[in-house]
Amino acid sequence: MAELFDQLRAMLDAQSTDIEHVIMHIQAFSIETPSWGYGNSGTRFHVFRWPGAARNLREKLADAAQVQHVTGCCPKVALHIPWDQVADWPEIKAYAEQLGLQLGAINPNLFQDNAYRSGSLCHFDQQVRNQAVEHVLSCVQIAQATGSDVISLWLADGTNYPGQDDLRKRRHRLLDSLQAIYAAFPETMRLLIEYKFFEPAFYSTDLPDWGTALLLAQKLGPQAEVLVDTGHHPQGTNIAQIVAQLLDEKRLGGFHFNDRKYADDDLIAGSLNPFELFCIFNEIIGAQHEDNTNGGRITYMIDQSHNIEPKIEAMIQSVMHIQTAYAKALLVDRIALHGAQESGDVLGAYRVLQAAYETDVRSLLAEVRMRQGRAPDPITAFRTSGYAERVASERITDEITSGYLGM
Amino acid sequence: MAELFDQLRAMLDAQSTDIEHVIMHIQAFSIETPSWGYGNSGTRFHVFRWPGAARNLREKLADAAQVQHVTGCCPKVALHIPWDQVADWPEIKAYAEQLGLQLGAINPNLFQDNAYRSGSLCHFDQQVRNQAVEHVLSCVQIAQATGSDVISLWLADGTNYPGQDDLRKRRHRLLDSLQAIYAAFPETMRLLIEYKFFEPAFYSTDLPDWGTALLLAQKLGPQAEVLVDTGHHPQGTNIAQIVAQLLDEKRLGGFHFNDRKYADDDLIAGSLNPFELFCIFNEIIGAQHEDNTNGGRITYMIDQSHNIEPKIEAMIQSVMHIQTAYAKALLVDRIALHGAQESGDVLGAYRVLQAAYETDVRSLLAEVRMRQGRAPDPITAFRTSGYAERVASERITDEITSGYLGM
Amino acid sequence: MAELFDQLRAMLDAQSTDIEHVIMHIQAFSIETPSWGYGNSGTRFHVFRWPGAARNLREKLADAAQVQHVTGCCPKVALHIPWDQVADWPEIKAYAEQLGLQLGAINPNLFQDNAYRSGSLCHFDQQVRNQAVEHVLSCVQIAQATGSDVISLWLADGTNYPGQDDLRKRRHRLLDSLQAIYAAFPETMRLLIEYKFFEPAFYSTDLPDWGTALLLAQKLGPQAEVLVDTGHHPQGTNIAQIVAQLLDEKRLGGFHFNDRKYADDDLIAGSLNPFELFCIFNEIIGAQHEDNTNGGRITYMIDQSHNIEPKIEAMIQSVMHIQTAYAKALLVDRIALHGAQESGDVLGAYRVLQAAYETDVRSLLAEVRMRQGRAPDPITAFRTSGYAERVASERITDEITSGYLGM
Amino acid sequence: MAELFDQLRAMLDAQSTDIEHVIMHIQAFSIETPSWGYGNSGTRFHVFRWPGAARNLREKLADAAQVQHVTGCCPKVALHIPWDQVADWPEIKAYAEQLGLQLGAINPNLFQDNAYRSGSLCHFDQQVRNQAVEHVLSCVQIAQATGSDVISLWLADGTNYPGQDDLRKRRHRLLDSLQAIYAAFPETMRLLIEYKFFEPAFYSTDLPDWGTALLLAQKLGPQAEVLVDTGHHPQGTNIAQIVAQLLDEKRLGGFHFNDRKYADDDLIAGSLNPFELFCIFNEIIGAQHEDNTNGGRITYMIDQSHNIEPKIEAMIQSVMHIQTAYAKALLVDRIALHGAQESGDVLGAYRVLQAAYETDVRSLLAEVRMRQGRAPDPITAFRTSGYAERVASERITDEITSGYLGM
Repeated sequence: MAELFDQLRAMLDAQSTDIEHVIMHIQAFSIETPSWGYGNSGTRFHVFRWPGAARNLREKLADAAQVQHVTGCCPKVALHIPWDQVADWPEIKAYAEQLGLQLGAINPNLFQDNAYRSGSLCHFDQQVRNQAVEHVLSCVQIAQATGSDVISLWLADGTNYPGQDDLRKRRHRLLDSLQAIYAAFPETMRLLIEYKFFEPAFYSTDLPDWGTALLLAQKLGPQAEVLVDTGHHPQGTNIAQIVAQLLDEKRLGGFHFNDRKYADDDLIAGSLNPFELFCIFNEIIGAQHEDNTNGGRITYMIDQSHNIEPKIEAMIQSVMHIQTAYAKALLVDRIALHGAQESGDVLGAYRVLQAAYETDVRSLLAEVRMRQGRAPDPITAFRTSGYAERVASERITDEITSGYLGM
Repeated sequence: MAELFDQLRAMLDAQSTDIEHVIMHIQAFSIETPSWGYGNSGTRFHVFRWPGAARNLREKLADAAQVQHVTGCCPKVALHIPWDQVADWPEIKAYAEQLGLQLGAINPNLFQDNAYRSGSLCHFDQQVRNQAVEHVLSCVQIAQATGSDVISLWLADGTNYPGQDDLRKRRHRLLDSLQAIYAAFPETMRLLIEYKFFEPAFYSTDLPDWGTALLLAQKLGPQAEVLVDTGHHPQGTNIAQIVAQLLDEKRLGGFHFNDRKYADDDLIAGSLNPFELFCIFNEIIGAQHEDNTNGGRITYMIDQSHNIEPKIEAMIQSVMHIQTAYAKALLVDRIALHGAQESGDVLGAYRVLQAAYETDVRSLLAEVRMRQGRAPDPITAFRTSGYAERVASERITDEITSGYLGM
Repeated sequence: MAELFDQLRAMLDAQSTDIEHVIMHIQAFSIETPSWGYGNSGTRFHVFRWPGAARNLREKLADAAQVQHVTGCCPKVALHIPWDQVADWPEIKAYAEQLGLQLGAINPNLFQDNAYRSGSLCHFDQQVRNQAVEHVLSCVQIAQATGSDVISLWLADGTNYPGQDDLRKRRHRLLDSLQAIYAAFPETMRLLIEYKFFEPAFYSTDLPDWGTALLLAQKLGPQAEVLVDTGHHPQGTNIAQIVAQLLDEKRLGGFHFNDRKYADDDLIAGSLNPFELFCIFNEIIGAQHEDNTNGGRITYMIDQSHNIEPKIEAMIQSVMHIQTAYAKALLVDRIALHGAQESGDVLGAYRVLQAAYETDVRSLLAEVRMRQGRAPDPITAFRTSGYAERVASERITDEITSGYLGM
Repeated sequence: MAELFDQLRAMLDAQSTDIEHVIMHIQAFSIETPSWGYGNSGTRFHVFRWPGAARNLREKLADAAQVQHVTGCCPKVALHIPWDQVADWPEIKAYAEQLGLQLGAINPNLFQDNAYRSGSLCHFDQQVRNQAVEHVLSCVQIAQATGSDVISLWLADGTNYPGQDDLRKRRHRLLDSLQAIYAAFPETMRLLIEYKFFEPAFYSTDLPDWGTALLLAQKLGPQAEVLVDTGHHPQGTNIAQIVAQLLDEKRLGGFHFNDRKYADDDLIAGSLNPFELFCIFNEIIGAQHEDNTNGGRITYMIDQSHNIEPKIEAMIQSVMHIQTAYAKALLVDRIALHGAQESGDVLGAYRVLQAAYETDVRSLLAEVRMRQGRAPDPITAFRTSGYAERVASERITDEITSGYLGM
């Protein structure tokens, strides 16, 4: 490993890239993990319970602390309300801090109430819209209690059939509801608006694409930004280009990372097309070189609900993939890239990216971890810790109290 | 309506199509409805319970009898085991007959048991495969008890990540399991093998396409055929062509009708692309003209689990759409079509289809219903029957005991 | 036919829709046909020449006059420069008027010059951008000479490989170029910005989606609007919803109609999913009811290049499909629709659309034509006119001078 | 480089993989390049001529010899007839041998003749079918003259509109035509049947998927096999699984490698999803471990027509990507993989693949090249050779005589 790292240093020297600069960036890069990724969840077909899966927020935090322990880049945990609702937020905040964690983005739930059959923030009935707005506002309050500065808004709203609702009216109602929410935002908090092209059974989703989300954010104000979930696009979409556009509009609020083969979006980030993930980071780092990354306000989050995988391992693996893509994007020789681009050297420019991508950065990431006193390989570290076996024996109630349970 | 029907008769006379012949075909055309379409079901996000949704098989049959009552073309109900498991099959068969119904295809469930985490008929563990085989064999016995002659086999099997399992071994295991099942088939029963291109969270599904299903059917023997679920294809697929190929191979066993916009397949059949449904029937009726429809053994079934729609109305609407597509396909002037095709008249041939498709067949279907003593419009008939209101007041327990519940 | 029309009148009376009002709208509805649809064109594989296909602008106009003659709703012809470049624009304008035609949208060509290898308006080289800007400005001058008030801008610009160019810089250059163009626009002219999700061989297209196009239009000013080409979307896209959003933003400038199965967009509009076309018009007519259609400034155009079909017939067929979808959308019972929507009657609302869609409007369109002194069926009228045979014998040079010729 | 190679050797030792064994496999692996990749070609929009692009078969072979010179794994060149038709085949064969090359697969052209408007081997007119069959048979004779043992058959046949032709009859005609062709095959020659899901402007393609191609191959006989073109699938397709199925059926005849973002298939292989390419090779090498690779008869070919890239560089880059994916697949620890699979260790199994994929194999491939006396980096070797500049100055006629020219 050490020798591989030295090789890498030499390679970077050759392209005038300071490896210590790269390491500094990697150290500063952090990824928020989702509380719901630690509990049991499933498809509409079945929930395969994982032995020892977290049953409540404290257990989720304990698991997240393990991820942070072995990776060193996951100090924050995103919450989902009401799945993670607790009576005493200061207490849970203190517990998190004790584990070395902070509470991250608050995710309202606007889909698991019978009132939402025809939508939530877009519902034709003002009363239902009010209920939804109230719920988001209560999340804003929770965020204040937990020290979170992000509300991640995802809607499962839409229509199942043509004609079911007036698409322009839904748009107006959505804007109205968001304006009511935005008005209550403290200045330090951001509203991240997530879009999704499809949803099971839907004919239209109310936030199908980045254009829709961006227009809303612009109408709301500077604290509203767009959240890119990598799994929420039509097949064949150039996500890196969407990222570039949002960076350019200074409205890229953050990411929900995950991957998918076709229709869903809960597979481990970067597990099916790691090069695409690299291209996304390449846009961000390219923009950073020009101080154009929305003031560093991009929040990197994972949004995955693992079905058959061990929950904690899947999260660690996801984090490693994201780190890998990020690290490789840092290795891109931007001077060479720029030169090739401006001279119309199509393949030469591509090869600059490809050279960075082909580089094995495992020794680099191991070095970063070892400098922090961590084991070089997070998965091995976790597997040998005995934690998984311990919680499997301790957490024996098989009650499921939250998550994607279809109930 | 009567005048519209007379117009239609005149139009058909002009193309030498006997409207009585068309009516005879429509009368002979029947669609099996699924028991699971009458109960509550949902996505992984939520189950929106419908007031009065059927809670058990008897109630599902009672609801199905309503559909048969107003449409006259749905005498059979497909069952899902164990969701519809009962202690006394002869009793339920008698109950169905009393309602004017027969029990149709038996659908085994190979996805809601914890043993199936890594698959069922394809699992690497022989014991799990045995369990799955045993379950299907028990369904064969149920079919014998209920007088059903079809087992519809759908697998939620696959892998979530590259490398998770050996794709060729899974194929071998699947064939082995199916051979064990097929060996127990009485001569009068058919095994319909369903394929699906994608499944939430999957990297590979074990039966992704018609080619995979057909190869298996061929290896098994003449009682194995392919089941086409209209919602189970990649975007942009020409399903009518797949139907044509299966007809040509004499292995088109049946359909699961439904529609979808992108990723799921539980919307009302023909609600988003009714022309595609018409093109599918056009292939079948074209083949019937040459006695090439697999000996009439095509079983037409609906496979839908409605999320926010009234269950019975959604089923009636689906049946009407399928009837409409079928009726329009019967109107195609096959002599003109053949002539245009053989002379390379690209648009002339297309226009023959289009002329049939543009025809309003509501009066024709109303005539068929009225000749059977039914109301001309099934939806109005059902809405005015008071049945929905009655069961909504009677079926008050909100317990959900089966279906896509995510648990 | 007359009886069918009377039936239709009675049906509309029942829903308080005045058929004369519907007819008035249909009479006011016009569709622009593209000059390039009358000449030979093809794929990169081959150009199948059609006997008698138009060889120059005068012949294209003569053919377009035939389409106008039999349909009565196609008084305008869109031009493509330089394919349709002529020395004397006043003369060609007079010729068009003599044929009962006007010259419509001017379409610049930014893809058939060797300079455009790395793009045109987005090229990294200022000189190439200048060349492209100059070309569009010359089209503005042509528009002034021809009395056209629309420039339709479509870019074949993009990158073929990741890294090939800086995606944000391309965006800046595009805006700069468009601003230079927009500055020269007379007040009565509109710039319609077309987007396309994919292009053969491209990794990114510079205008991939409606969001990109709309943002540019907003930055430019009120005379810039978005052009929706129905074939330019990812599979599974809800185009009707995009239309609704653009209507709501008052930036829906117009349409390029066509259809496609998967990858291209030159099939006859409405030939593969006529219901989708109907849903698009349903949004427009719904908005018209609220005076929200961008001041009536929606320009309806066909953009098709037929490969194996007779050019003129294919155009007539396309026009008829668009008229059909438009007419059906006019039949929607908007009061009933609104009522169902506001009461959450999912299927009831859908059925309002479906009832309009299922209606056979051929008699209605025939009535409209007959009131104008035209034959009821445009295809029959054209086929019996002998025009096709005449031009096939007259236009014998097989030289191809313009179009998608791959050279 | 040498040190990186030593690192790799050590890593492989640790998993009991003999690096010399790996090297031996890489040395034995060869890729056929296509003659048409060296000449000018384009989309229907434009052909951007490349300075010095080959103008005839001799020049194409000279260019291919350069690719072989720097990569050492491309001794064969596939030909396209009539684009590469020459009067004296023995002479051209001798010329190729003089360049160190052999002539590879013969590709008939069934799309650039006016007779093929409605198809070739599937045409409703027996005369056209005969013409197409005769053309393929003439290619068989060419193959015998050139020492080729493969005919690669790709059809641009299909229908543009529903109803245009009878889909089952097209299938019968195709089989008949293929049987006539197959009957003339010498025993040592193979017929590779290629499929493609879509084609510009098509409603149906006559060989849309692997199932269609495989069924035909089975009906023809053991010398007929399926050709997988990586760019010819619906979005979201698991190509590795198709490869696994074809291996299992012993009918995987070969590959046409390329990549694409959405709709076309002429981008450099592995340039957009290199992990997918790796997964494909993983299936092949997994099967080789069980002597199940169709007797080693898999022919690896590139099928790309570069639009804006330098032709020879693009080919070298493609070859390197394919070698890279192949080499990484050789590094997979198959014992560990098997163990993880059989114990249901979902992530453990995935990680075995991922570990191989993350490995930087550039030093390994450099070692292989250096052992053959070649430069370690083919692109640098080619760029410094001066060949590109030389042919750019020598090949000055800009006549285009073959290829995808749209004429």
